[in-house]
Amino acid sequence: MKIAYDGTAYAGWQKQENALGIQDVIEQTVKKLFSEEVHVHGSGRTDAGVHALGQVAAMDLQHPIPAANLKKALNSNLPADIRIMDVWEAEESFHPQYNAKRKTYQYHFINDEVMPPDRRYYASLVQEKLDMEAMKKAIRPLKGEHDFYAFRSAKAVNESTVRTIYDIDLHYEEAKKEYVLTVTGNGFLYNMVRIIAGTMIEVGKGRIPAANTEKALLEHDRDLLGPTAPPQGLTLFSVEYV
Amino acid sequence: MKIAYDGTAYAGWQKQENALGIQDVIEQTVKKLFSEEVHVHGSGRTDAGVHALGQVAAMDLQHPIPAANLKKALNSNLPADIRIMDVWEAEESFHPQYNAKRKTYQYHFINDEVMPPDRRYYASLVQEKLDMEAMKKAIRPLKGEHDFYAFRSAKAVNESTVRTIYDIDLHYEEAKKEYVLTVTGNGFLYNMVRIIAGTMIEVGKGRIPAANTEKALLEHDRDLLGPTAPPQGLTLFSVEYV
Repeated sequence: MKIAYDGTAYAGWQKQENALGIQDVIEQTVKKLFSEEVHVHGSGRTDAGVHALGQVAAMDLQHPIPAANLKKALNSNLPADIRIMDVWEAEESFHPQYNAKRKTYQYHFINDEVMPPDRRYYASLVQEKLDMEAMKKAIRPLKGEHDFYAFRSAKAVNESTVRTIYDIDLHYEEAKKEYVLTVTGNGFLYNMVRIIAGTMIEVGKGRIPAANTEKALLEHDRDLLGPTAPPQGLTLFSVEYV
Repeated sequence: MKIAYDGTAYAGWQKQENALGIQDVIEQTVKKLFSEEVHVHGSGRTDAGVHALGQVAAMDLQHPIPAANLKKALNSNLPADIRIMDVWEAEESFHPQYNAKRKTYQYHFINDEVMPPDRRYYASLVQEKLDMEAMKKAIRPLKGEHDFYAFRSAKAVNESTVRTIYDIDLHYEEAKKEYVLTVTGNGFLYNMVRIIAGTMIEVGKGRIPAANTEKALLEHDRDLLGPTAPPQGLTLFSVEYV
């Protein structure tokens, strides 16, 4: 399934102690509809408040039903903040996490004095003047295969911290005063995109030298980087398998 | 003041019997901050669920404070779904409603099978295939000065139903599968923009002939037109005074 969700009301893709995960809501809906206890495997977790346009997840139904019917039944019974955009039959061996080849995330932020109400759950706000060229200079060295050890949360437990970024680009939409950072890679460490965004924004404000990103790749030093940007700006845009 | 709001949680600009209006929230905030009972006059009402990017409103403060300070104080105390985008000192005689020269509304709708979660409060959904050329043909005759008697809610009480539309245009954003109808006029009857949008969409589906809009202008017949489109797609984009 390709799934879009507004993460505002959830603990994230996975449940936390006191809050519901998007995964659980889908599992409960399948149970209610088809009386089947399924496990919905996603391409990876997203944090509380983080959104998705193209999360991919799979489940095994004991009594399969046609993809189009499944899509319709799920969308009729899921809350409006979780939508099944597409359903297809996968190979028996398909695993949304292990088979993922490329993931694309977008980080949105408004650069203005006041946050427009309709963007408050989907972007973060930066009120300071930003230097676009400095921000572009800061993200350029991240492209390619690198050890992103410095670009991960202290809570991360990955064995290898080497990842490849295929594409990283920053766009500005003047009419909306909105910046969009788009990053495509073979995988991301915990909080990696939000640390890249938070660092790039600090560079844009002139508080961190643009050269710090390249330095952090070499020196593995988290202290060279900026804060982890707030979750609501982040969207899992797509997951590719070929 | 220029005000942006997300109308989802409110009864509209004005309060209803059991629900809060945006106007009331601003009045209560002024009272809390400055201990002044003010009346906030808007450029016009918006319905429940309708949004604004550029509503204009005025109030008389007995103890005026600098515009920039007022803006900051209000935004620090208003809920995040109501934002003061700008504050300026107006002439004593300024009235946001009677002095308004042009208003622009936008109507947003998604043309897809499934509503993207992040657009669910800001656009309506049309699942049927739409004929762009037929929709453009339907709105073209509305430009100019006409008697829009047929294009108003039965609840409307306006004495004159003659209005001038200066501009009306439909755009389609392929990436978001989103249509935006933009209408600028010297004023609008109750539900007029939503009836134009609802009619245009029915024409797009092939259920109403494009010629019905022109016919309705001449014959004053509401039955020639489509339904009133849902409120969440509508945004008061701007109000101009010169």
